Amino acid sequence: MTSSTEVVMPHVPGPVDPARLREVLDGPWAAVRDAHRTQLDARFLPVYGETGDEARARITRLLTELPTEAGMPSAFPAAYGGRSDIGGSIVASEMLAQVDLSLMVKAGVQWGLFGGAVMALGTERHHDAYLSDIVSARLLGCFAMTETGHGSDVQQLRTTCAYDPRTGAFDLHTPHEAARKDYIGNAARDGRMAVVFAQLVIEGRRHGVHAWLVPIRDERGRPMPGVTIEDAGPKAGLLGVDNGRLSFDHVRVPRDMLLDRYAQVAEDGTYSSPIENDSRRFFTMLGTLVRGRVSVGGAASAATRSALTIAIRYGDVRRQFGAPDADREVLLNDYLAHQRKLLPALATTYALSFAQTELVTTLTEVQGGGDPVDEHRQRELESRAAGLKARQTWHATRTIQMCREACGGAGYLAENRLPGLKADTDVFTTFEGDNTVLLQLVAKGLLTGYRDEFGSLDGWGRASFVADQVREMVLERTAARSLIERLVGSVPGRDEEVAVTDRGWQLKLLEDRERHLLDGAVRRLRNGATTKKDRPFDIFNDVQDHVLAVAAAHVDRIALEAFVAGIERTADPAAQALLARVCDLYALSVIEADKGWFLEHGRLTPARSKAITAVVNGLLKELRPHMRTLVDAFGIPDLWLHCAVLREEAGRQEAMAARDAELA
Amino acid sequence: MTSSTEVVMPHVPGPVDPARLREVLDGPWAAVRDAHRTQLDARFLPVYGETGDEARARITRLLTELPTEAGMPSAFPAAYGGRSDIGGSIVASEMLAQVDLSLMVKAGVQWGLFGGAVMALGTERHHDAYLSDIVSARLLGCFAMTETGHGSDVQQLRTTCAYDPRTGAFDLHTPHEAARKDYIGNAARDGRMAVVFAQLVIEGRRHGVHAWLVPIRDERGRPMPGVTIEDAGPKAGLLGVDNGRLSFDHVRVPRDMLLDRYAQVAEDGTYSSPIENDSRRFFTMLGTLVRGRVSVGGAASAATRSALTIAIRYGDVRRQFGAPDADREVLLNDYLAHQRKLLPALATTYALSFAQTELVTTLTEVQGGGDPVDEHRQRELESRAAGLKARQTWHATRTIQMCREACGGAGYLAENRLPGLKADTDVFTTFEGDNTVLLQLVAKGLLTGYRDEFGSLDGWGRASFVADQVREMVLERTAARSLIERLVGSVPGRDEEVAVTDRGWQLKLLEDRERHLLDGAVRRLRNGATTKKDRPFDIFNDVQDHVLAVAAAHVDRIALEAFVAGIERTADPAAQALLARVCDLYALSVIEADKGWFLEHGRLTPARSKAITAVVNGLLKELRPHMRTLVDAFGIPDLWLHCAVLREEAGRQEAMAARDAELA
Repeated sequence: MTSSTEVVMPHVPGPVDPARLREVLDGPWAAVRDAHRTQLDARFLPVYGETGDEARARITRLLTELPTEAGMPSAFPAAYGGRSDIGGSIVASEMLAQVDLSLMVKAGVQWGLFGGAVMALGTERHHDAYLSDIVSARLLGCFAMTETGHGSDVQQLRTTCAYDPRTGAFDLHTPHEAARKDYIGNAARDGRMAVVFAQLVIEGRRHGVHAWLVPIRDERGRPMPGVTIEDAGPKAGLLGVDNGRLSFDHVRVPRDMLLDRYAQVAEDGTYSSPIENDSRRFFTMLGTLVRGRVSVGGAASAATRSALTIAIRYGDVRRQFGAPDADREVLLNDYLAHQRKLLPALATTYALSFAQTELVTTLTEVQGGGDPVDEHRQRELESRAAGLKARQTWHATRTIQMCREACGGAGYLAENRLPGLKADTDVFTTFEGDNTVLLQLVAKGLLTGYRDEFGSLDGWGRASFVADQVREMVLERTAARSLIERLVGSVPGRDEEVAVTDRGWQLKLLEDRERHLLDGAVRRLRNGATTKKDRPFDIFNDVQDHVLAVAAAHVDRIALEAFVAGIERTADPAAQALLARVCDLYALSVIEADKGWFLEHGRLTPARSKAITAVVNGLLKELRPHMRTLVDAFGIPDLWLHCAVLREEAGRQEAMAARDAELA
Repeated sequence: MTSSTEVVMPHVPGPVDPARLREVLDGPWAAVRDAHRTQLDARFLPVYGETGDEARARITRLLTELPTEAGMPSAFPAAYGGRSDIGGSIVASEMLAQVDLSLMVKAGVQWGLFGGAVMALGTERHHDAYLSDIVSARLLGCFAMTETGHGSDVQQLRTTCAYDPRTGAFDLHTPHEAARKDYIGNAARDGRMAVVFAQLVIEGRRHGVHAWLVPIRDERGRPMPGVTIEDAGPKAGLLGVDNGRLSFDHVRVPRDMLLDRYAQVAEDGTYSSPIENDSRRFFTMLGTLVRGRVSVGGAASAATRSALTIAIRYGDVRRQFGAPDADREVLLNDYLAHQRKLLPALATTYALSFAQTELVTTLTEVQGGGDPVDEHRQRELESRAAGLKARQTWHATRTIQMCREACGGAGYLAENRLPGLKADTDVFTTFEGDNTVLLQLVAKGLLTGYRDEFGSLDGWGRASFVADQVREMVLERTAARSLIERLVGSVPGRDEEVAVTDRGWQLKLLEDRERHLLDGAVRRLRNGATTKKDRPFDIFNDVQDHVLAVAAAHVDRIALEAFVAGIERTADPAAQALLARVCDLYALSVIEADKGWFLEHGRLTPARSKAITAVVNGLLKELRPHMRTLVDAFGIPDLWLHCAVLREEAGRQEAMAARDAELA
């Protein structure tokens, strides 16, 4: 009847060479990855147990010692020391994250946020004056957007910058504590300038948020007049990053320090912009932020790979509890419960790594071609980046925690790396966009077909018009389109006849869930728009959980598509067979985790749902011998793992076994 | 048809006085709680950003400054400075955890583990010689059980202690690095003595694990001859606790330093014990460890309550994103997604707090009456303590993480307390027993009816005989037995006729899941014992996930029973009505989280499953106005929250609103 439990899974033919897997994972920027693997030596590793001051001094020093070849500054034009390689720059940041997350964030603030904003929002005079020094890290700077009172809703910033034609200058001012710039990297110790976001006011009229380049410290490191700098103090992690707070007391900013690519203020106070609508201009300006999000998602995945490598290698040497049919105690990785923790997380990490590669490739296509950027594609890109960033960072938080537990007490010691990975990545779930807010952005894009031109970062509260805009959804496939078309097309009509390891069926099921959730959300929003006319906030708020589920389902699906595309690119047959099994585990553990929904909606019968659990357990058994291969394929140099217990445990186990044998 | 979606939920009648809720939550040791609330002043609060050395020095000093009245040492007999109040001692430790987790753990090592072992395993001469100094903290000590090579499986410790009748003394020795004592609290800096667990050997014959009281430092703090002490180094959290490593190089231990309550070694080397079987003796000795587990579970719940109080109070003043029908931005707690995160976790925290009170009460009944302890009840107690410890500590890890995210960037700053709560509690999931191992212990107790006399801490590998021992299960209700009997008994036969808020139905559903899972595990183990005779390890390993699900279902059920008992004890009608709604949210969110299982097994129809989600969302709306009341009921003094943003945010929002109004 149900073929699913009886299915004979194609066996992975013997051992697989991790190098063959690594080629596929490394993707188009393999050379950038390899350059980092060889150039980042022991100097760049985290130092365990140092004070905040020590960490900050060390990270600042290392920033200037980073090899420039193939590094993060490669995003800038050659004239300023880069090579216009946006994708390479993002991959470089991912590699830094594998070595030290403070270093990655510090570099991200300097070159991604600060330098990126000068590049994207400034014009030639800013570029010529500052970019070379920014690239060489002679000029360190901040990206001063977030305020104490407004993090997610940056259109509501309260800092003002008022132009006065009589003085020919701007007056930058922090009206109250909620408007101070907060959590600003590079502010507490090192930054000499800042890109400051504020409400532009001309003769009493507001023109929305704009950005200025503002000196905050003089040559000797003292705050500039009118600028107050505070230290944000100790944090959960990222000790090497000097986050601080900036307040401005009527600071004079010369007219030419407005970053004026998207808006100009003439000497007489005349305001002009190629983009008429304030909101649209604002979100165009923010479009460059997408690189920060992509980098954070990539960093989260890199840290997850480090944690999984440590936990899986530890579980391959660490033994606990005897078995009746073995002389020695049992390896942790041989326990089903241990495999149940580690392997689905590993499979998801593969899926997200492939999705990240697709995303970086798309980003270079959309943003790498010069003006004008295709607005629809830019919106899709922003949505995809938002969704993957949320998924990758939550996956990192959960998986690193699980890896630390999988290493027992050893996982709690700083010398074994996991505490640092955990503490440093934690902030990723809420910075560069709070994950929940980002998933709403994804859902909104899906609901409106990326047509809505306002409020990409917007909450639902203000956006009641979206209810009218929701459209009939056409799912767009995001990778390996024709292959996926074929796989989905060849699934027979009756599900029960298809093995649960049928890729087309898995793809179809995830598409189907996304479509059904989206249709349901559309229906509920439209109904709400009629029945809750007097309570517009409730129209959205009452379906917020549903809308977030749409976004999550979407991300699950695009990650599966990326995985399928990755398998297609794999040349080595054994590697391909192994990846296919890992992909099964990803798809089936995603389905298993949401089996309640599939059962509620008649997409799975109870028998088939139970069969999925059985097949997942079968996959764990099949993948057990390949666990080490699958983490070796990440290509993390042993040095970079920087984990005491990995160096010591195998030797201890041998010494113990030898002594036990002696006594027996 | 299905009444569930139409059910009119009894409304909570207006505002509820948190003091009425607190009386119920405080339970039998309210006086101990109040004594701590008034006596633990600002001196005892964590210091943010201090170094490890500073933290250790401060915590050691505070240990000696703790008010002795109603404190942790109250577990000891009056003759030594206590008052034989075991329950009060555990509640005192929970209150310390609400103030500073390093202080709680340091105190737990000193009085719970070290002092507790001397009390429980030693005899009068040890008590008279040391307990007064232990109680007064003049003599600080360690509990040296865990080794680098063996944490969970302590029967396999490799340290040896050999008696030589010729010298009349023991020889304590660490044969290799895997046998060094590791993660030992009080070892790196302060401990003068240690209770050391080792394999007793007499004339070449092994007698299993026993404990000795061993000096490790002299009066001037130098390691004793033959004792090597290392610092475990920086950790993820608990900076104030000096964890270290102890190795012994043929250290001479006088004969009278064997803690000899359960086994004696005569001068001529004759071994005697009232308990013949080595394993049984060992687990009897370990029985006292149960208090440590109960304390850790309680501490995890206390930290969870602190985190929820911070996140919910922040969400009641913090605003983000405008709503079309409001002048000001929306409070975080008004968003459905925010409620979906915080409120089910809050409801679970209530359930686990009630379960903790039941557990401490049972513990004092079982262990408070002097010898002999009822062995069956002791085993049940150990199982319950193991299960609740696992549930409470995982709940803490997840909930504190969620609370930190709910506070955005502010949640990442040390000054807002959440980073410390998170880092300090993290280790609880693997110490005092790894959670996964503990859940196996729970399952094993259920499967064997607590009859199995071996290997309470045992993995499944060695315990193949359990397959023969599994019995027909009789579920025992753990609290408010007659009330629960009545509630379950009055549920009509056809589920679809019962509202999902019917307490009897909820209880029955959780009982039914536990019974079904247990029956299934029994069946699979028996089948395995027949079909996998040649692979005894696989008999257990293949069902490990199933067995862990049994244990988790059991804990869900006993927490619900404890909640029901707590509601019954509530005198104030409004408080009782509110608790009943919180209990609904606990029960229904547990069911919702596992709806896949209930659907697979025909326990829920798809329609009813969807109805549960709708009712949960309804409960969130109903409970929204009571969020603040529900955390105020925890009775955490404002001072103890020690959170900068809670002190500042309301004022900032007012200043911003005033300025905005001025401009408008």
